[in-house]
Amino acid sequence: MTDLRFFDRAGPYSLDELAALSGARLSDAAAGERPFSDVAPLETAGPQDVTFLDNRKYVEAFVQSRAGAAFVDERFAERAPAGMALLLTAQPYKAFARAAQAFYPAEPVTPRVASSAIIDPTATVPADCDIGPYVLIEAGVRLGARCQIGAHTVIGRAVELGDDCRIGAHVTLSHCLIGARVVLHPGVRIGQPGFGFAPDAEGPIKIPQLGRVVIGDDVDIGANTTIDRGSGHDTVIGPSTMIDNLVQIGHNVVLGRGCILAGQVGISGSTKLGDFVMAGGQAGLAGHLTIGSGARIAAKAGLMRDVAPGETVCGSPAVPIASFMKQVAILQRLAKKKDGR
Amino acid sequence: MTDLRFFDRAGPYSLDELAALSGARLSDAAAGERPFSDVAPLETAGPQDVTFLDNRKYVEAFVQSRAGAAFVDERFAERAPAGMALLLTAQPYKAFARAAQAFYPAEPVTPRVASSAIIDPTATVPADCDIGPYVLIEAGVRLGARCQIGAHTVIGRAVELGDDCRIGAHVTLSHCLIGARVVLHPGVRIGQPGFGFAPDAEGPIKIPQLGRVVIGDDVDIGANTTIDRGSGHDTVIGPSTMIDNLVQIGHNVVLGRGCILAGQVGISGSTKLGDFVMAGGQAGLAGHLTIGSGARIAAKAGLMRDVAPGETVCGSPAVPIASFMKQVAILQRLAKKKDGR
Amino acid sequence: MTDLRFFDRAGPYSLDELAALSGARLSDAAAGERPFSDVAPLETAGPQDVTFLDNRKYVEAFVQSRAGAAFVDERFAERAPAGMALLLTAQPYKAFARAAQAFYPAEPVTPRVASSAIIDPTATVPADCDIGPYVLIEAGVRLGARCQIGAHTVIGRAVELGDDCRIGAHVTLSHCLIGARVVLHPGVRIGQPGFGFAPDAEGPIKIPQLGRVVIGDDVDIGANTTIDRGSGHDTVIGPSTMIDNLVQIGHNVVLGRGCILAGQVGISGSTKLGDFVMAGGQAGLAGHLTIGSGARIAAKAGLMRDVAPGETVCGSPAVPIASFMKQVAILQRLAKKKDGR
Repeated sequence: MTDLRFFDRAGPYSLDELAALSGARLSDAAAGERPFSDVAPLETAGPQDVTFLDNRKYVEAFVQSRAGAAFVDERFAERAPAGMALLLTAQPYKAFARAAQAFYPAEPVTPRVASSAIIDPTATVPADCDIGPYVLIEAGVRLGARCQIGAHTVIGRAVELGDDCRIGAHVTLSHCLIGARVVLHPGVRIGQPGFGFAPDAEGPIKIPQLGRVVIGDDVDIGANTTIDRGSGHDTVIGPSTMIDNLVQIGHNVVLGRGCILAGQVGISGSTKLGDFVMAGGQAGLAGHLTIGSGARIAAKAGLMRDVAPGETVCGSPAVPIASFMKQVAILQRLAKKKDGR
Repeated sequence: MTDLRFFDRAGPYSLDELAALSGARLSDAAAGERPFSDVAPLETAGPQDVTFLDNRKYVEAFVQSRAGAAFVDERFAERAPAGMALLLTAQPYKAFARAAQAFYPAEPVTPRVASSAIIDPTATVPADCDIGPYVLIEAGVRLGARCQIGAHTVIGRAVELGDDCRIGAHVTLSHCLIGARVVLHPGVRIGQPGFGFAPDAEGPIKIPQLGRVVIGDDVDIGANTTIDRGSGHDTVIGPSTMIDNLVQIGHNVVLGRGCILAGQVGISGSTKLGDFVMAGGQAGLAGHLTIGSGARIAAKAGLMRDVAPGETVCGSPAVPIASFMKQVAILQRLAKKKDGR
Repeated sequence: MTDLRFFDRAGPYSLDELAALSGARLSDAAAGERPFSDVAPLETAGPQDVTFLDNRKYVEAFVQSRAGAAFVDERFAERAPAGMALLLTAQPYKAFARAAQAFYPAEPVTPRVASSAIIDPTATVPADCDIGPYVLIEAGVRLGARCQIGAHTVIGRAVELGDDCRIGAHVTLSHCLIGARVVLHPGVRIGQPGFGFAPDAEGPIKIPQLGRVVIGDDVDIGANTTIDRGSGHDTVIGPSTMIDNLVQIGHNVVLGRGCILAGQVGISGSTKLGDFVMAGGQAGLAGHLTIGSGARIAAKAGLMRDVAPGETVCGSPAVPIASFMKQVAILQRLAKKKDGR
């Protein structure tokens, strides 16, 4: 059960309500009024809880689950334990997401300006924003409506945020324009100068970094991730892009819409990604590459060439997944042969 | 010599005292009353200092050392320079650790609440804690005895810490329960929501992250490391586990007791490690894996499968070390052949 | 065009002035008095702007550029569009850097001590320093002239900084001595204890970390990078070394002069680099290695052996680049063969 010291729960919701808000279909329409009080994972859910099955790996846990109801694909329905109400859907994870959002809606923003916050008189801070303790907001900053700014966060000169942004504690923002509904987790660094210098016998000569970071609507950026501002062009993060923790984005990088970057990914300067590109954890992309929309870059890949739209690449140096699988298979076979097997 | 502007030194200690506290044996019992004033590395130690030899790579430095005494394994004793007192032990590094802890004991916690700290009236903060400047402690937080909270650290609603925790500056904690004697270095982020969403044509749908982070006793977590809270289950860090800097731990990950994760390791969601698992620097573990107790994952490994207890795996995709060595050898041989050699 | 809400621009400068300050030569001396108001990339520069061509990849953009002038190597001069004034130089990027520095000089430091800063009375803070809001400066700290300390930064006991340092927001410094003109970006962590402990059945025994971090003049360190203090020796960063974001430097590491470490590089304890060593993004170096001056370590390399001066190594485990290329070629050929091609 979710620890209610940390979370505020709404509900209860009836099965009918859960079906309506998630688009799922009840296996037993007669049970529609049965109320549920929480969501929970397969292993810990009880009779009052709604759970879900999305990953074939967890079918056994589904069979054993004590959950009162579950979002599940029709093909697993017959494996359900007796008495479990089924919310049938082709997309159980998405349906569960909607239910969980209903039980745990985002906390509303309570207007406040902490007395320890320092706000430059030329900054625009709507009265419905929540400005936490020790926040620093510099000259010319413009916040949208209902923004929440976490404790100690520093927003540098002229930075702009759209409506309904949720900025965590200990974030630093400079030289950037940020869209609406953007979520930044603690320790995010946006807008510092990129890594640009010309080699010289006397020591590197730094190139002034004169671009910005432009972040689209509905972007989510993980803890301690760093995004450098452009050198002349802007660094751009497309709308609805999700970036995990400890990711490094170099100057002039452009990410399209709906990209997903897992933890510790690194993208070198001036590389451009289309829409809905996915990169697995610790993938590294060299600079000045072009990655087509819908491309998938495997975890740990070391990418040194352009990638066509929709292509999947793996390995380091990264190659198309079919080539990668062959290389792996050949190496394994040769290694066995050497063994006399 | 250690720079005493930065450290407070205790001592001196006699050889007898050093032998007693470390479990080492004096090669020359008659020298037991000889006093020593400090510990130091082989290369910089002088006649008043105690050093150690633990890595065969440094035997030559041992031979040249001017140290007055050394912790050393018996088999290297005859290489000792004339006049060096020997503290014989099968575990010189551990014995040296005990001596260094005696010369440099952890600074005691001086009770204080900085006037700039903001502590919610519903929080429990024992009078023997040290709360630094600009610390923010939210509603319902419970600190154990003698906790030290570094400057600017933010402790979110209902978080609990055990006794004798040492939390560095600029840490953010939320949705977590932390054991006793836990050390967190600057910039650690614990408890932010994990990277969970369901793909959708309209853009990803975020899954509320409803679990916690539960951290056992005696855990040590390095600077700027990030640990996400669970999605429904908890993220768990077992007791006495050591985590280096810039490590990423995804939601629902479970680490057993005494695990060691080197710098920049990344562990994806829902992967479970047994006890005493070691992972070298920049190793990456895919999600939903099971790693047995005592397994060793090499630096830079890219792990995509379960690992049996005690097994050592290397490479990306990671394979057992014997297979890895063969693969490397074969590739090298083929590359030489190609060269006509 | 650079967004002048974020930057303060100097100028205009005539072509003669730009030639003089950059060491470039005008292709048309008669145009020397023509004034320019800004620098800009090839694609966005207009008639008032100076641009540059440095990467063959962008010749087409050069041909299409509307820039009024460009720094360019003589061999590309004939590709210039009609009417573009040319500033000829063998090193266009370096010349452009000088021009950009003239248009966008570093903002001068305006002396200030924010009223919310907490400065220990035993600290030395020259009157010409700029100490931002919520800064904490502990006992015995010594700052050089004209240092700028960003908001919330914590400078621990006895730390020393040379003249003209620029320290970003949210930095933590302890147990370190820092040279002149050092730039630290937001979230940098310097001087926390390294990852040192002796394994033990009861759980790891921590080794007190008794060294320092010593940083030379003109070093630049990227956002959220972590540098641990030495265990007994010091961790040393040589002058003019450039370190990108999210880099991890272990205890006792020594970097020479002018090294360049790209994003997410990790260097394990006690490894020593000579001068002008370059490491690409996400490269990882094992501990106790010696890397010769001028060596180049490719992005994503996993280095487990010493590297000779000037050598280039790639791959994981890293090998000399010629061997790496052969290994890659052979694997590709075998994979194709398997395919029956």
